[in-house]
Amino acid sequence: MTAPQSAFDPRWLAGLDTLAEQATGLSEPNPRVACRIIAPDGRAFEGHTQRAGGPHAEIVALRAAAAAGADLRGGSAVVTLEPCSHHGRTPPCCDALIEVGLARVLVALRDPNPLVSGRGIERLRAAGITVELLPPEHPLAAATRALNVGFLSRMERGRPWVRLKIAASLDGITALANGASQWITGTAARRDGHLWRKRAGAVLSGSGTVLADDPRLDVRLVPTEVQPVRVLLDSQLRVPAAARVLQPPGQVWVYHTPAQPADAAALRARRAALEATGARVQEIAATPDRPPRTRPRIDLAALLLDLAAREINELHVEAGQRLNGAWLQAGLADELLLYLAPTLLGQGGAGLAQIGPLSALTQGVALAYTEVSPLGPDLRIRAQVLAPQAPAPQPPPPTA
Amino acid sequence: MTAPQSAFDPRWLAGLDTLAEQATGLSEPNPRVACRIIAPDGRAFEGHTQRAGGPHAEIVALRAAAAAGADLRGGSAVVTLEPCSHHGRTPPCCDALIEVGLARVLVALRDPNPLVSGRGIERLRAAGITVELLPPEHPLAAATRALNVGFLSRMERGRPWVRLKIAASLDGITALANGASQWITGTAARRDGHLWRKRAGAVLSGSGTVLADDPRLDVRLVPTEVQPVRVLLDSQLRVPAAARVLQPPGQVWVYHTPAQPADAAALRARRAALEATGARVQEIAATPDRPPRTRPRIDLAALLLDLAAREINELHVEAGQRLNGAWLQAGLADELLLYLAPTLLGQGGAGLAQIGPLSALTQGVALAYTEVSPLGPDLRIRAQVLAPQAPAPQPPPPTA
Ligand SMILES: NC(=O)c1ccc[n+]([C@@H]2O[C@H](COP(=O)([O-])OP(=O)(O)OC[C@H]3O[C@@H](n4cnc5c(N)ncnc54)[C@H](OP(=O)(O)O)[C@@H]3O)[C@@H](O)[C@H]2O)c1
Ligand SMILES: NC(=O)c1ccc[n+]([C@@H]2O[C@H](COP(=O)([O-])OP(=O)(O)OC[C@H]3O[C@@H](n4cnc5c(N)ncnc54)[C@H](OP(=O)(O)O)[C@@H]3O)[C@@H](O)[C@H]2O)c1
Repeated sequence: MTAPQSAFDPRWLAGLDTLAEQATGLSEPNPRVACRIIAPDGRAFEGHTQRAGGPHAEIVALRAAAAAGADLRGGSAVVTLEPCSHHGRTPPCCDALIEVGLARVLVALRDPNPLVSGRGIERLRAAGITVELLPPEHPLAAATRALNVGFLSRMERGRPWVRLKIAASLDGITALANGASQWITGTAARRDGHLWRKRAGAVLSGSGTVLADDPRLDVRLVPTEVQPVRVLLDSQLRVPAAARVLQPPGQVWVYHTPAQPADAAALRARRAALEATGARVQEIAATPDRPPRTRPRIDLAALLLDLAAREINELHVEAGQRLNGAWLQAGLADELLLYLAPTLLGQGGAGLAQIGPLSALTQGVALAYTEVSPLGPDLRIRAQVLAPQAPAPQPPPPTA
Repeated sequence: MTAPQSAFDPRWLAGLDTLAEQATGLSEPNPRVACRIIAPDGRAFEGHTQRAGGPHAEIVALRAAAAAGADLRGGSAVVTLEPCSHHGRTPPCCDALIEVGLARVLVALRDPNPLVSGRGIERLRAAGITVELLPPEHPLAAATRALNVGFLSRMERGRPWVRLKIAASLDGITALANGASQWITGTAARRDGHLWRKRAGAVLSGSGTVLADDPRLDVRLVPTEVQPVRVLLDSQLRVPAAARVLQPPGQVWVYHTPAQPADAAALRARRAALEATGARVQEIAATPDRPPRTRPRIDLAALLLDLAAREINELHVEAGQRLNGAWLQAGLADELLLYLAPTLLGQGGAGLAQIGPLSALTQGVALAYTEVSPLGPDLRIRAQVLAPQAPAPQPPPPTA
């Protein structure tokens, strides 16, 4: 078996994954992309996506080459994501690559947007440039996908990638019966949690957590250029305007369900109080009531559509067992990011997620572990949600 | 810094850890020991502990050398555990090593029995042999300790090493509300569980698990020479004589608490029925009644003393949340062997261990992770119990 010979030196790809990572917490909602341009004289110039509205990775690399007076005619470029071919916030990168007279471009991953996918490559080829696409299993292609999981989800599925971040004891307790939950995990795990918040376009929680813990939900323990939006689900607007989540830095979006007629005036007043803090407050559809639930709850599918329209790529959920359960039961959670502390907390507390009660083991939410690593004294476990969970448990199987 | 130069070639130690492991499921209750003898002509002869009453590792190696006609005068030996100096089931190994005229012996770990520790080394030295002891942090010393954790515990602490083996969902559920618990984990985890059973002198469970699941608790999924004793805690002898745990292979020991006067005759009858299956049935002390507990329960500290007297080294517990909780609350569990399946089972089921309810996170059972590894789709997590758990929760802290 002979594999087709690539015209690219493998060393030209080295480090592009970590270069692209540097766009994290900066380029939101644009994808995290890196580009390296190799001039015929052997010099290399590189860059990653800047703030939205600022230059894309290709432009940063081209500017570096221009500043160094490099002649790029006949040169090569490697880009982790297919260069854009359309006018967005900035002019198309394809044209800029064509203009300098490059001979070859290597693309790690196609543009995920089905409407424009392949167009950038076509445009380069039409200009006489030799374009290569990495196979999907190539490490740089896989790293590009992982780094842009939220952007890809929004482009391909029309909704953000939903990650549930949970800190628990080894026996799955997230809060004691008296509400105590801070801090179950150690400093290394909490710092790591902030790295994941930083990746997200939005950090979401529920009224239960905000009323119980009054968390900030911002990125503090690691540096970031951009703060993720904080999203609060608060059907009746019960959260007081003094809640810390409503304070700077960054935007806050509060979602509530349509007012019950008797409560309409009071809800308007609560809404005004929240808006006075600078929060954007929005009404959104409620799920139909279903016993034993007595109050309408926010329709999470409708919420995801709205967040996608607002260009949220990764949605990082830090909620209690109620809202975690709702995401899982709706089949809308994509991933679990679980920190397990080396302690047993026993009976009577809150669990990871309110689902069930189940009558057969096969009714559980099926996961696949993707990674386990120690973090100080704690463990970090990542798992993907395999199949959407049926909203209601199946009837019990006949007893054998 | 110059480390003292060892007279031993490091290659002479290679593989002795895995050789000693071959005594697992064979040498019980004797320690798992390996020995390699290097003749002056360069040939090496090795062996590990055989069945109790059979030859120790040193004797197996010496016999191999004798069968090959090797002259061992001036040769060397490596033993993972200090050679015995006393007449036990077999004559002292020290004498046999001295007799063949060895010049040097390397010992990985001292005899843990405080009454005889160092005697073997002294005896060898008195015979003119140069004896070296590995530092405790040497990998072969650490591996010898890990492999003989139960033997060391019995010798040093006068009680078996207690390991709680638990299979659970990622959210810590060990059985659904309707009792369903088979099988939460996959075949690789179940097979691994049998490897750990095989290491144990006894596999213990409670009447709750036996009445619910009717398990065999023997070693079936991996080959073994010796079956561990199965130990059943059944205060009132409620388990029927037809229970599978009472069937061959291997011994079964059933423990119960002293009869209530009104139940004495009936208990005698149930005892006779169990003894008719071949089980050894024994009365043991009960813990004092404490509300809300209404029935006496087996005193686990008294049980451990009895099991140590019966030469049980590792005690492998496969029980439900009640008995797991009792071991932890009594401060008598040493280690957790946890298999976490990639599923969420949610509300209403049984947890890992009944402890609490706690009023502060610091009251949890403190653990330290010692190992995590994937097993098929599941995770195996091992953790040591750090501090004995106080039997009653502390008063709540003043609210801040
Ligand atoms: N260990 C951890 O990782 C962690 C993280 C966060 C929180 N916690 C703990 O969790 C506890 C709070 O948990 P919780 O379950 O009460 O609060 P939660 O899950 O954070 O919020 C639940 C609330 O969100 C609102 N909500 C809106 N739409 C919903 C929907 N579609 N589905 C479900 N809920 C919806 C509901 O209140 P409305 O009717 O008011 O809208 C609901 O009661 C606290 O003790 C906190 O310390 C632990
Ligand atoms: N996932 C797993 O790893 C796993 C493993 C085993 C069992 N299970 C599940 O666990 C459930 C059974 O759990 P369980 O808690 O009812 O049973 P258990 O923990 O196996 O046994 C508890 C019983 O042991 C007896 N006992 C004697 N001395 C005791 C002491 N000092 N402390 C506590 N108990 C003592 C008590 O009954 P007496 O008064 O009769 O003596 C007690 O009710 C079943 O659904 C089973 O499927 C799951």
